[in-house]
Amino acid sequence: MSGDASDDRDEFALIARLFAPLARSYPGALGLGDDAALMDVPAGQQVVLTMDSMVGGVHFFADDPADLIARKLVRVNLSDLAAKGAKPFAIMLSAAFPQDVGTDWLRRFADGLAQDCHDYGVALIGGDTVSTPGPLTLTLTAFGLVGQGRALLRSGGRDGDKVFVTGTLGDGALGLLSRQGRLPRLDPDLRDQLTRRYLLPEPRTTLGPKLVGLAHAAMDVSDGLVQDVGHLCRQSGLGAVIIAADLPLSPAAQQALADDPSLLSKVLGGGDDYEIVFAAPPEHADKIIRLADDVGVAVTAIGHLRSGTDVVVQDGQGRPLDLARTGWRHFTDTRG
Amino acid sequence: MSGDASDDRDEFALIARLFAPLARSYPGALGLGDDAALMDVPAGQQVVLTMDSMVGGVHFFADDPADLIARKLVRVNLSDLAAKGAKPFAIMLSAAFPQDVGTDWLRRFADGLAQDCHDYGVALIGGDTVSTPGPLTLTLTAFGLVGQGRALLRSGGRDGDKVFVTGTLGDGALGLLSRQGRLPRLDPDLRDQLTRRYLLPEPRTTLGPKLVGLAHAAMDVSDGLVQDVGHLCRQSGLGAVIIAADLPLSPAAQQALADDPSLLSKVLGGGDDYEIVFAAPPEHADKIIRLADDVGVAVTAIGHLRSGTDVVVQDGQGRPLDLARTGWRHFTDTRG
Repeated sequence: MSGDASDDRDEFALIARLFAPLARSYPGALGLGDDAALMDVPAGQQVVLTMDSMVGGVHFFADDPADLIARKLVRVNLSDLAAKGAKPFAIMLSAAFPQDVGTDWLRRFADGLAQDCHDYGVALIGGDTVSTPGPLTLTLTAFGLVGQGRALLRSGGRDGDKVFVTGTLGDGALGLLSRQGRLPRLDPDLRDQLTRRYLLPEPRTTLGPKLVGLAHAAMDVSDGLVQDVGHLCRQSGLGAVIIAADLPLSPAAQQALADDPSLLSKVLGGGDDYEIVFAAPPEHADKIIRLADDVGVAVTAIGHLRSGTDVVVQDGQGRPLDLARTGWRHFTDTRG
Repeated sequence: MSGDASDDRDEFALIARLFAPLARSYPGALGLGDDAALMDVPAGQQVVLTMDSMVGGVHFFADDPADLIARKLVRVNLSDLAAKGAKPFAIMLSAAFPQDVGTDWLRRFADGLAQDCHDYGVALIGGDTVSTPGPLTLTLTAFGLVGQGRALLRSGGRDGDKVFVTGTLGDGALGLLSRQGRLPRLDPDLRDQLTRRYLLPEPRTTLGPKLVGLAHAAMDVSDGLVQDVGHLCRQSGLGAVIIAADLPLSPAAQQALADDPSLLSKVLGGGDDYEIVFAAPPEHADKIIRLADDVGVAVTAIGHLRSGTDVVVQDGQGRPLDLARTGWRHFTDTRG
């Protein structure tokens, strides 16, 4: 009932060696060799903080590649920061490893962590390593910076704002089906694309900070588009209209939906997209799309905010979709 | 394999309601209703960050009272901040709850969290709630403030510094034995005191910030005194002498050791003390002890730093103790 006995496991020494290089770029990490880390915050900036956990068998498959598990963990957290307009700079990782995790697995996990720390310019500045008799359980706290009072909140939406989304929708949820072997009729190449997208989302870290001052409200799409737009609307005291025909779909998702139209439910309500949905005044639309194009991110207008409280999804003729018929189930808002 | 499906569990809605009040005092928590939190840092201050996890069956017993589990989680993290001289102000909590956790348990857990948030003046500013098929797994990230460049590090010790420790040593480890029914001959009152101390450590949050500018180096005693002094020595490039006869013991620990002298190993090497061990120049000793007395914390000189690399524990006659004979086992340094 005390963590101390596990400290002399060989694996823990290995982890310390594998993780230490990821802290080198950040002096306040103190080489991961102290009780805590120190963080300096530039004048005029705010720290933006998020914390997400992933549990083996719940948020990923136990046999997913170790490096991709690490990278997804980083990315789902950076996605939250991007959606707030923040530029990420640091992470802390707490990992509860099963006893039998093995050194090869740990090396691959650290490799994945190192790759995304490098690619996204974040340092590992602290954390914890413990043993668990249960599944691998990973928690990341991620830190970004944004100008004082400039963060993009869920609550900033205004009546008449256009609603935009980055990238494409539904690939995460369809990728999960693909990973489960439940899209057997899809082209193998497209199946692989979807699976990859499920395993390795692309947080919009380059675009997010560019939306500051242009978008009124933003959040990341992690629980499913309709639910997440609902969160944004609730915090903004508004409703929204979403045009189903305008939702951006990848070629893989298009083929999957052509084969099985009921999969629209995955586009509207599936999780794991890690795109940014944001509300911005129509007059900023051109500038936003140009800025997004500069960083290679597609941005699509998918609807608008209006007075009210509901999120209505319309078909191409302006008729409300019967979401129940699409297989989409209503989620109770519990995230606050 | 996605977190979204669990969001509509009644328990998750309950957790959101129970936790929301703990965020009210911190505007940047955004009511726990956004993707992230915002943190302002006063000019001239650094953020001090720590992150510790606790796993059911590893760091606590599954049947420990829910409120005490929450409070211990807070306290072990605040202990790290205190040891750096930082004043705590915020926490983030990620909790992986077993499916059968139950609403009564959750209420008690939230009550404990609320009590310590109140008592230590920290706000809950964010986090995550997920389900796990494994044991309850809790991760806290805690935030404190310290003057720029003023944090007490492990690495600041100097040759000739006195080594001090707050409170008493060994109660955590003996409390674990007591909790396990392994101290049957001890007075029931003393047994209860030890158990309580194991379940509910007392982080030295009032004293820690007062040591800034007086102590050269500090860390919290969580892995066991000798091991932790070893960490401090290694980071400071020094060795240390610890006088076993000077170690501060509670009346309960004194009685336990009188009954079984081999329990000295628990005082020297047991974990879960959550005291601060620190190195300070002898000329500051009187002032430190006076300041500690002002806040009701005992501080005891237990040895000194010297050139070298070893931590030598001496008996009252200056002879090195044979630690192996005391049952103390050598820990490899894996915490870095």
